[in-house]
Amino acid sequence: MMKTISGGVCAAKGFTASGIHCGIRKNRTKKDLALIFSEKPASAASVYTTNLVKGAPLTVTKNHIADGIAQAVICNSGNANTCNANGIEVAEKMSEALAAAMGIKATDVVVASTGVIGQPLNLEPIVNGIPALVSALSKDGGDAAAEGIMTTDTVKKEIAVEFTVGGKTCRLGGIAKGSGMIHPNMATMLVFLTTDAAISPAMLQKALSSDIANTFNMVSVDGDTSTNDMVTVLANGMAGNDEIVADGADFEEFMKALNTVTVYLCRKIAGDGEGATKLLECRVSGAQDVATAKTVAKSVICSSLLKAAMFGADANWGRVLCAIGYSGAKVDVDRVDVSFRSAKGEIAVCKNGSGIEFSEEKAKEILLEKEIEILVSIGAGAFEATAWGCDLTYDYVKINGDYRT
Amino acid sequence: MMKTISGGVCAAKGFTASGIHCGIRKNRTKKDLALIFSEKPASAASVYTTNLVKGAPLTVTKNHIADGIAQAVICNSGNANTCNANGIEVAEKMSEALAAAMGIKATDVVVASTGVIGQPLNLEPIVNGIPALVSALSKDGGDAAAEGIMTTDTVKKEIAVEFTVGGKTCRLGGIAKGSGMIHPNMATMLVFLTTDAAISPAMLQKALSSDIANTFNMVSVDGDTSTNDMVTVLANGMAGNDEIVADGADFEEFMKALNTVTVYLCRKIAGDGEGATKLLECRVSGAQDVATAKTVAKSVICSSLLKAAMFGADANWGRVLCAIGYSGAKVDVDRVDVSFRSAKGEIAVCKNGSGIEFSEEKAKEILLEKEIEILVSIGAGAFEATAWGCDLTYDYVKINGDYRT
Repeated sequence: MMKTISGGVCAAKGFTASGIHCGIRKNRTKKDLALIFSEKPASAASVYTTNLVKGAPLTVTKNHIADGIAQAVICNSGNANTCNANGIEVAEKMSEALAAAMGIKATDVVVASTGVIGQPLNLEPIVNGIPALVSALSKDGGDAAAEGIMTTDTVKKEIAVEFTVGGKTCRLGGIAKGSGMIHPNMATMLVFLTTDAAISPAMLQKALSSDIANTFNMVSVDGDTSTNDMVTVLANGMAGNDEIVADGADFEEFMKALNTVTVYLCRKIAGDGEGATKLLECRVSGAQDVATAKTVAKSVICSSLLKAAMFGADANWGRVLCAIGYSGAKVDVDRVDVSFRSAKGEIAVCKNGSGIEFSEEKAKEILLEKEIEILVSIGAGAFEATAWGCDLTYDYVKINGDYRT
Repeated sequence: MMKTISGGVCAAKGFTASGIHCGIRKNRTKKDLALIFSEKPASAASVYTTNLVKGAPLTVTKNHIADGIAQAVICNSGNANTCNANGIEVAEKMSEALAAAMGIKATDVVVASTGVIGQPLNLEPIVNGIPALVSALSKDGGDAAAEGIMTTDTVKKEIAVEFTVGGKTCRLGGIAKGSGMIHPNMATMLVFLTTDAAISPAMLQKALSSDIANTFNMVSVDGDTSTNDMVTVLANGMAGNDEIVADGADFEEFMKALNTVTVYLCRKIAGDGEGATKLLECRVSGAQDVATAKTVAKSVICSSLLKAAMFGADANWGRVLCAIGYSGAKVDVDRVDVSFRSAKGEIAVCKNGSGIEFSEEKAKEILLEKEIEILVSIGAGAFEATAWGCDLTYDYVKINGDYRT
C-alpha cells in the first residue's frame, strides 16, 4: 500500500541533502546552492528541455550520466549559466569542485543551474561555499535543498511516498521548483527525485521518460518552455529489493510510486505559476487516442483568454471550445461537452458544441475556488489526458514586465 | 504609382456603405449593423478561420460565394451568432432580409457577425433596422460601417490606395476590426475589402489566399484564433481595366495594392490588441526557407514572457532566444543574432546565441517607444518573414478577466 511520508528528497535510504547561501544571490536570506548526495553510486536518469537553447548544465549533466550512474546533484539558483560562452567550462568546474570535496567522480555529479541567463556564472562563491554545503549534509537537509533551488517560487515543493516492491519497503521522494521568477526570465522547471529502490539505469530511464509524457510535459504556466528544464532521478538500491531489470509487477509498482510523486509536484508547480491564484486542471476524455486528448488538454490550458477568464471566475465555455477548435487536433466540435468542477460542485455549460442553460450564480460559486477542473469530453473514443496550468493575472504581467535589473 | 487616398471601403467606384445602431447592442451610441454595397455584382473571395469551431455566418457566406459572386456585405456586432443551434437559419434569414430590401439575390450576400457567442442572435432588430441601413448608404458611409463592425476596438481601421492596372486607375480599400472586446470573447478579426479593379473570382481568390499567408495569418494578439475570423474582398470591375484572368504584370500590380492595404490593417489590428500599449513586429531574416522564418517570427510574437517584457521596456533577449528555441523550427541557435529597433534607434543585444555588452539605458530609450521591431537573424539562408503582435499588459488581463455578463 502506498502512503505519503515526510522527508522529501531525503526520505529514501542513504540520501542526505543540504542548502546554503553561498553568495550568487545578493539577498543573504535566500539560499542559492543545494546538494543532494547518495551514500552509494546510484542508477541515474534524466529528461531535459526540448528547447533548442539548452543551458550548459544540461549538456554537462547529459554527458556525465551517459553511463547511467550518478551520486550527487549540485544546483545553484540566481544564475542559469546559459547563453554564456564559458558555460560548459563553468559547469564542469562546478562538478569537479564538488567531486573533489566528496571523494567521488566528477562524472557522477548531476549539475544544474536556474536564474538569469546571458550573464556569466561566477564560480568563486560556489567553490568557496562547497565546504559548508558538504558539512551541512543531513537527513534533515531536504527543506534547505528545496529552498536552495527556488527562485521566486512562493512555496517549497517536496513530497515522498513509501511503497512495496518485491516484499521490500521502498521510498521515493523529490523536490521541485518552477514558474516563479522575480528577475524576469524563463519559468525553469527543475525536479530532483531520489529513491532507494533497486532498478537498472535503463529501466529507470524508461520509467521516467514514460512518466513525464503524462506529467511534466503536460504542465504549462504560460506556454514558454525554459532553456533549463530538467527532471533527474537517482535510485541507489539501498532498499534491498531484487533489482528491477525488466517490465513486470515490480516495475508497475515503481511506476505508480513515481507517478504519485510527479503528479503531486506537477500540481504544485502549475498552481505556483507566476502570479497564479488558481490551479487549473483540464481533463479530456472520450478521445480517439491519447495524442488527441493531450493536444486538446494542452491547448485549453495554454489559452490566454481561458486563463484570464478563470482569473475572473467567468464560466466562459466559449473560450474552451475555441481553444479546442484551434488546437490542431481532429475533433468533431458538435460532440464536445464542457463542464467546470471544483470543491463547490460541478456544472455543465456546453453540450454537443452549443451553449446550454446554466445558473451563472452557481458557476461563479464553483469558479471562485482555488482549484478548478475544466472537464472536456469529445465523444470520439475512450482515451483520456490531463494538463495542468494556472490563471492569468495582473501579477503575472507585473512579475514579467519588470525591468530586468 | 501607388498612393494612399481617403474613402476607405467606399473609395472604389460603385461602392457605398452605411452603419447604424439597430438595437443588438444595448448602448444606443454604438453602431451595431454595417452594410457595404456594390452597384454591380462583383467577383468575391473570402478566407475563413481555421478554427474547427466556425461561426454560422462563415458557413453561410462560404455557401453563398461558392460561385465567386457577391454584391453586398452585411455585418452585425454585439453577437457572433456562433455555437447556437439556430445559427445557420438566422444567418440565412439575415441575408434574405437584406437581399429583399435591395433587390439582389440572397446568395450574393456576404453575412458576418461578431460579439458574444453561445447566445442566440435576435433577428428582429436587424430586420427592423435594414430599411434605415439601406437608405443610409452613401459614398461617405465608410466610417459608419467601420464603426458598426467594431466591438471594443479603440480605433476605426480603414485605408484605401489608388494604383494603375493596364493603364486604368483602380482603387482598393478596406475596413477591419479585431482584438478588442469588452465582453470577454474571442478577438475576432473581420476584414472587408473593396476594389473596382476587374479581376476574375479565381484570380481574386488566388491573390487573397496568397496574401493572407503573409499578413493576417501572421498577426497574433494572444495566440487565440477566433471562431469568426473572416477576410472578404469584392471586386466589381468598374475601373474598366482588362479583367485580370491570369498571372502577369497586372496581377502583380493588384497584389501589391492588396498587400499595401492588408499590411496596414494588420499593423492596426495588432497594435490595437486588448490592452496593448505597443505594436510589436518581429522580422526574421536569414532563414533556410519561408516556413522556418514564419514559425520563428510567430513564436516570438506569441511568447507571453516576451510580450510582458516589451510592456516593461525590458531588453530581455533571452526570452526571444527561448521562444526561437521552442518554436519547433530547425534553427542553429549558435548563429542567432537579436536586435531591437524603434524610432529611437537600433541596438544589438545578442550575437551567435550569446549575450553581448550593450547600454541598458539606450535599450530602454528604444523600447519605450510605441512601435518596436524585434529583429532576428538566424544565419541559415536568405528567406524572411514578419509577424505582428502587441505587448501583454494589465489591461489585457482586466479586459479578459471580467465577468462575462
